[in-house]
This record gives sequence, structure tokens and C-alpha cells, in this order.
Amino acid sequence: MNPVEIIRKKRDGLVLTAEELDSFISGFLGGDIPDYQAAAFLMAAYLKGLDDNETAALTDLMLRSGKRLDLAEMESPVIDKHSTGGVGDKVSIVLAPMVAALEVVVPMISGRALGHTGGTLDKLESIPGFRTNLSFIDFRNALWEAGLAMIGQTDDIAPADRRLYALRDVTATVESIPLITASIMSKKLAEGLDGLVLDVKTGKGAFMKDRESAEALAMSLVETGRRYGVRTIAVITSMDEPIGRTVGNSLEVRECINFLKGRADDDLLELVLTLGSYMLFIAEECVNLEGKRSVDMEVEPSEARLEEKRINLEGVINSGKALEKFVELLETQGGNPEIVANPGLLPVAGNILPIEAPRKGYITGLDAEKIGVAAMLLGAGRLKKDDPVDPAVGITLNRKTGEDVDAGDPVAVLHYNDERNLSEAKELVREAFSIGDAPPEPKEMIIKIIT
Amino acid sequence: MNPVEIIRKKRDGLVLTAEELDSFISGFLGGDIPDYQAAAFLMAAYLKGLDDNETAALTDLMLRSGKRLDLAEMESPVIDKHSTGGVGDKVSIVLAPMVAALEVVVPMISGRALGHTGGTLDKLESIPGFRTNLSFIDFRNALWEAGLAMIGQTDDIAPADRRLYALRDVTATVESIPLITASIMSKKLAEGLDGLVLDVKTGKGAFMKDRESAEALAMSLVETGRRYGVRTIAVITSMDEPIGRTVGNSLEVRECINFLKGRADDDLLELVLTLGSYMLFIAEECVNLEGKRSVDMEVEPSEARLEEKRINLEGVINSGKALEKFVELLETQGGNPEIVANPGLLPVAGNILPIEAPRKGYITGLDAEKIGVAAMLLGAGRLKKDDPVDPAVGITLNRKTGEDVDAGDPVAVLHYNDERNLSEAKELVREAFSIGDAPPEPKEMIIKIIT
Repeated sequence: MNPVEIIRKKRDGLVLTAEELDSFISGFLGGDIPDYQAAAFLMAAYLKGLDDNETAALTDLMLRSGKRLDLAEMESPVIDKHSTGGVGDKVSIVLAPMVAALEVVVPMISGRALGHTGGTLDKLESIPGFRTNLSFIDFRNALWEAGLAMIGQTDDIAPADRRLYALRDVTATVESIPLITASIMSKKLAEGLDGLVLDVKTGKGAFMKDRESAEALAMSLVETGRRYGVRTIAVITSMDEPIGRTVGNSLEVRECINFLKGRADDDLLELVLTLGSYMLFIAEECVNLEGKRSVDMEVEPSEARLEEKRINLEGVINSGKALEKFVELLETQGGNPEIVANPGLLPVAGNILPIEAPRKGYITGLDAEKIGVAAMLLGAGRLKKDDPVDPAVGITLNRKTGEDVDAGDPVAVLHYNDERNLSEAKELVREAFSIGDAPPEPKEMIIKIIT
Repeated sequence: MNPVEIIRKKRDGLVLTAEELDSFISGFLGGDIPDYQAAAFLMAAYLKGLDDNETAALTDLMLRSGKRLDLAEMESPVIDKHSTGGVGDKVSIVLAPMVAALEVVVPMISGRALGHTGGTLDKLESIPGFRTNLSFIDFRNALWEAGLAMIGQTDDIAPADRRLYALRDVTATVESIPLITASIMSKKLAEGLDGLVLDVKTGKGAFMKDRESAEALAMSLVETGRRYGVRTIAVITSMDEPIGRTVGNSLEVRECINFLKGRADDDLLELVLTLGSYMLFIAEECVNLEGKRSVDMEVEPSEARLEEKRINLEGVINSGKALEKFVELLETQGGNPEIVANPGLLPVAGNILPIEAPRKGYITGLDAEKIGVAAMLLGAGRLKKDDPVDPAVGITLNRKTGEDVDAGDPVAVLHYNDERNLSEAKELVREAFSIGDAPPEPKEMIIKIIT
């Protein structure tokens, strides 16, 4: 098939057949179709869209470009959670051990910090000795051993996605719902899942700033999961202010340890219990029949069943089982388990700088994007894909939206090693806090469930 | 400036500043911006458009990437004609000598056949000895000597356009009005013109199939010319059926010689006189003031003035002066002038095949695109940019729209050397002719003038 004709079809808003997409993407991966034709195609796809069939075909191509875990022999259901990325989003680090402590296998392939958003891999790598670059085989073994593993994308998994993503990154074609769907789902489907819960974030600190885009992405992800027989539920959540009290790699790990010890911040707990209850619901729906697991795609969870799951999840925190599972994770992946008893073993920044409230009042808003950018400027994140990160630096938030403050109270503390971007970061954190005379209307963290 | 941000701005439909365009295009030409980023930009520009300022800035960049003829010292006004391409379009070959015979300098940089359309360069090169690849200096000398010259785009002229066009060609981003405008106008403005008349074709055999697109292109071209102080007039003309009686390189040159000898077909004559009268109108408006020529941008030609110019043009045919100027052109550019007295010296195809009318009646339509494709299949044109052409082959049209025919009359004759695509070409020519019981309503060739 002529690549120019395929680009032209997409340019004109026509729907491509699976054969046309296959010919184009395979040609690109095989080196027959040059980057510039792929770039023109991506921009046409960005602006003209891909329909559900095209998105599924693209997902399939990327999935088939690599290996796929086969965990069918495992007795327990295999469920993952994926978030579209936010600020202070440490959910995976606590949720994976909690769910695994309840006999669910969690094969988590996570990402890195980029722009104002953080990345689970960078957070885990702040733990002395923790290895996220497991091979495909070691990943599999870790899952058999501990029931959970948290790694980065390997060369084996959806290599087509890596190639295509690298090109999207430099051609302003990242923020496309079908392209994001194919990218996320090809990696998640490679995990051999029975079920998937998606945390699709919307708001100031999210990738999808408006709710309509978040909802469209959620529906696209759920639809693609369904086509693969993976029960997929998307939870649309607010990402207007940072999650929890810390932003920055070792700071967030420390907060996670506290969380698993029972000292949880409300918003983080709510998010973890909501996402976790849907994971457990899908797990319970898994039926083992003649050595083959399957999930009913249509059954919806009742309030009562979700409530029961939340109680189970709180139970494994209170019993210490989740913390035990976290220690197991550390042991399997080379991380120093001593950090649990002694979080001081985590990297600590050389300097701190408190940010004081300019006036008395109530925090009426806390801009997640500004805090995210400030943390990135201090070295906790990266502007470009290959920038290094400093595991120790970041921001702790002494006040969050709705809380009261006196003039001069420290509302946040910057933890830094390098003064280079300090004044810019300081200014951003100051700007991130809005203070008013009255407490604001409380906002819901959980916006909508797409099943 | 960050190239990804520039692509993103265009992707989002925002207007780029001249500095942003300059930074991007210069970066592309300098090798700092890779083809894949330029390709994504071109697709975004294709789908989101460029406004008049952006188009002018792009034209300017491409123009400044190469040399520009300076013909200010010449006493005569410098006027060119450019056509967007059609089937049997031999206007340039007769019009340039006619206008040059009336003391107007015509520095014509022409193109080659592509797809179903023919190219002036290929036609001229069917003349034994004729050289179209003059250097910039030789082009200039030829203009001083003969008052006209007809060459192909050299490496000196708008090299940025060549680079960008090559990329557009393989990324399905050719058919964009602002990109076409910048491409055409950067080359034409390099000719150091005082005035430009554009033949913007619309219809079955044209690049712009619908009238709205043709009009939009015409307005974009005229607006860009104006910004450069080049009085530009666009004539929108019908390209539903081939122009004249021949399609194919040496066949068309032969028709041109007959035309200049006074044996002109109506539609070709009408087109030549219309375009020529606007060229002469602009020439007459040229004012030499202190060694600097200028043209009033706003003055409009009256019917009477245009009619006078038509009479002048017919005069140089009747007096033989246009034919003399054509001989001069041949002599300056190495073509054998004997072809004028003895057209049999032009290449002749080895075989002919008449196409007979299946029934008695009137020709109600003659599809230019089908005839163009048939001629290309016989070898007169090219499917891809670097395909060779056969100068001798093509199609003569014994009947055109409105003429009557008896069953079995030859309506066309194929001239061929290679039988490979003969049956396909034959079928296309058959299909190109529609025959009905009554003559069709006559259609206007000249659709609209944009000044």
C-alpha cells in the first residue's frame, strides 16, 4: 500500500482499514516508511482522530510488536491500576501492596516523571537499592514470588509504542486521545491482565485539563480494554491540588510508609480506597473455569460490594499486612527494607526553605501544576525525557485546601540541594496558594466512574 | 525558539509570527530541524491553514533562500504568466513570444509534467537541441538578448521551496492553498517581475477540482503578489476539457507553430488573448521614474483597453512577428529553428491508433483528466517526479465538445511507441468522450477575473 495514500486518507478524515494501519505501522517499524511520513500521519491522526476500530487496530499492532506476559497459570486474578499522571500521585506505591495483600496479583509497569507530573519509577528508585529495570523473566518471577512487581517499560514490551512515542514527543502529537489510548493500552494489555482500573485525572495538574477530554479518554480506554476481554473501569478524579502532603521522590516514599503504618491523609486515602475497591470487585468477578480465567464484562458493582472492599482494604492497613507486602516488594526488587523502620535512610535534601503565609485566612486553592513545576525546578522531575532527577528534593505541604492559616505560618517547605532555580520555585509555590476569608466549598475528588 | 512549540501552535490553529516561521524554516534548511518535525508542521499547516501574513512570511523566506533576478535596468516592463497546470495547456509557448514581440520582457520559469498534467519544460525539450537548464547568468543574458527565456527551476532559485516541496510530495501536504501560494510566488517573485498574470484552472483536469478552491487560491496568490508590489491578476479558467487539439509534447509544439502561423483553435486563442491582454495592460501601467519602475496596484483595466490589447496580440500573429520571436527563442536556447518551416523535424511516434465514435451525435463532454491520464500512460507524462517522458507520443483530438460526429468517425488518435499501456489508454480516451443527441449548452472558458 502506498504510504502517501494512507496519510492522505487520514488527512481527509477518512477511516483506515486494519490492513492499511498495519501496512503503515509495520512499514515504519521495519524502516521502510521514514520518520517524516510517520510524523505527517501522526499529525493527521491528531487533528482528524481515529475511531474505535482504528484505535483498537493500532493498540493491537503495538501490543503484537512485543512480548505479552502469560499469567494464566496463576491461581489469583491479575489486576492493575494505571493513572494518567498527576502531582504527588503516590497511589501505586501503597495500593499495589494493599491489593496484593488481598491475594490479587499486581503486575505494574509504570512511567517516569515528565514536565510537572511525577513518575512512580523515580519515586521507587529513591529507595536505596531498589531496581525497576527487571527483565521480562525477572518480572515474571517476582510476580510468582511476591504477587506484585513494579517495573519500567522494557524493550520487550510494546517496542512500537516506544518508537511512536519518541516521535510524538518531538512532533507535538502527544495529547491525542486515540494515540494515548493505544499507547497506554498496548503496555497494559502486555501485562496479561484480567482487569484494569484507570485513574483518569482532570484539572489544573492533569494532562487533560478539562473534564470533557478526560471523559473521552476514559471511554476510549474502557472501550479498548473491553475489546480485549479485560474488564476495565475508569475513575475520573480531580487533579486540581496535589495528592497527599508531599511532592518529590523520597519525600513521597516516606509519606507512603506513613500511610501504610496507618497515618493517611484524607484525599490520598479516599483515592486509594476508591481505586482499590474497583480492583477488588473485578478480582472477585474473576472465574477460573477449566484453567482459564474470565470476567463478566457487563456486571456492575453494587454500593454494598464496594463498601465491603473498602473495609477489606482498610483492614490490611490496620493489620500491617499491606506494610508486610511492601517489605516483600522491597526485598524482591533489591530495595533496602530497613527504610520502613527507619525512613531516615531515604535520601534527604541538604537545605530547606519554609514558605510563609502572607496573611491569615483559609486556603481556598492549591494549584497542582504550579507545585508540580516548582518541584521539577528543584530537581524532583524532568523537563526533557533524559534529564536526571534528584531523589531527595521536593516540597512538603503543611496546608491544603480548606485548612486555616495565620499570617507567617509556613504553608509549605521546599527541600533543595541546588539553588539554581530556587527563587523561581519559591515564587511558584507562593502563587500556588490562594488564601481567602472563608473556607471554600468542599470539592469532590471522585468525579465520575466509567464502567 | 522550540520547534515543538511552533508545531504545537500551528496544530492548535494559532497564528505564527514571522520570527517563529523564520526560526522554523531556517532551522529546517540549516539541518537543525529534522524532516520529521517539518513534516508534522506541514500537516498542521495543511489542516489548520496559514493566514495572509503567514503565507507572505513563508513566501519571503523561500524567496530569500535563493537568488533573485534584478531586471530593473531593462527599459521594458517585465511580466510573466503562470498556470496552475492542465491538460493540453500550451499557452506559455505561444503567449511568451507574442507578448515579447510587443516589447514586454518575459522571464518564464516553468515546470514539468506530473500526473495527468503536462509541463511546458517537457514540451520545449521535445524540440531538437532546446535547452531549458540555463544557468542563472545565461537566463539573464537570454532575456537581454531576446526579451524572453523559458527555463526550469535552477538550484539558485528558491532552494527552500525545492526542499519543502520534496517533503510535501511524500507527506500528502501538496494541495494546500497557502503552501501552493508560497511555492508559486517565491519562484515567480525571484524573476524580478513588474507584473504577473495567473491562470488558475478549475474543473475535471485541474489541480483544484472545485471553483471555490480555485478562487481561494487565486485570491491568495493575488494578495501575496500585491504585498511585493507586483501587480498580480488571476484569471480563473475552465479545465474541463483539454486545451486545443493535442496532448503530448512534440504534438503540442507542432500545434503551437500552427497557432503562431495563424491557424489557431478557438479555445486556445481565447485563453491566450485573455491572459495576454492582462499582461499588456499591466505592462502599459508600468511607469519608469528615475530608473525605478512601478505599477499602480489599484487601477483596473477597462473593457476598451483590454480589447485594444487583444487586437495588438492578434496583430503580432498576423504580422508574423510572434513567430519571429519564437524563432529567436529557439536560437537563444539552442533549439533547431528549422522546425518552424518543417515541423516534421520534431519527434514523431512510430504508431498511431484512431479511436472511433461508437454512435452518431454531438460531443457533449470531453474529460480532460481521462485524456491527461491516457497521454501519461502512453509516455507523454510522468506518474512520479523522476520518470522519463517520450517526446513523440500523445493524443490528437479530432472532435471537441459541441462538435458533431458520425458513428465510426475517428474522434481522437493515439500516437504511441510502446504498447504496454495502450489498451488502458484506449479505454480511457473512449470513456473521455460523451456523445449525446443534441449539442450541449456552450460553457464559458473564462470564469472570473481576480484583480
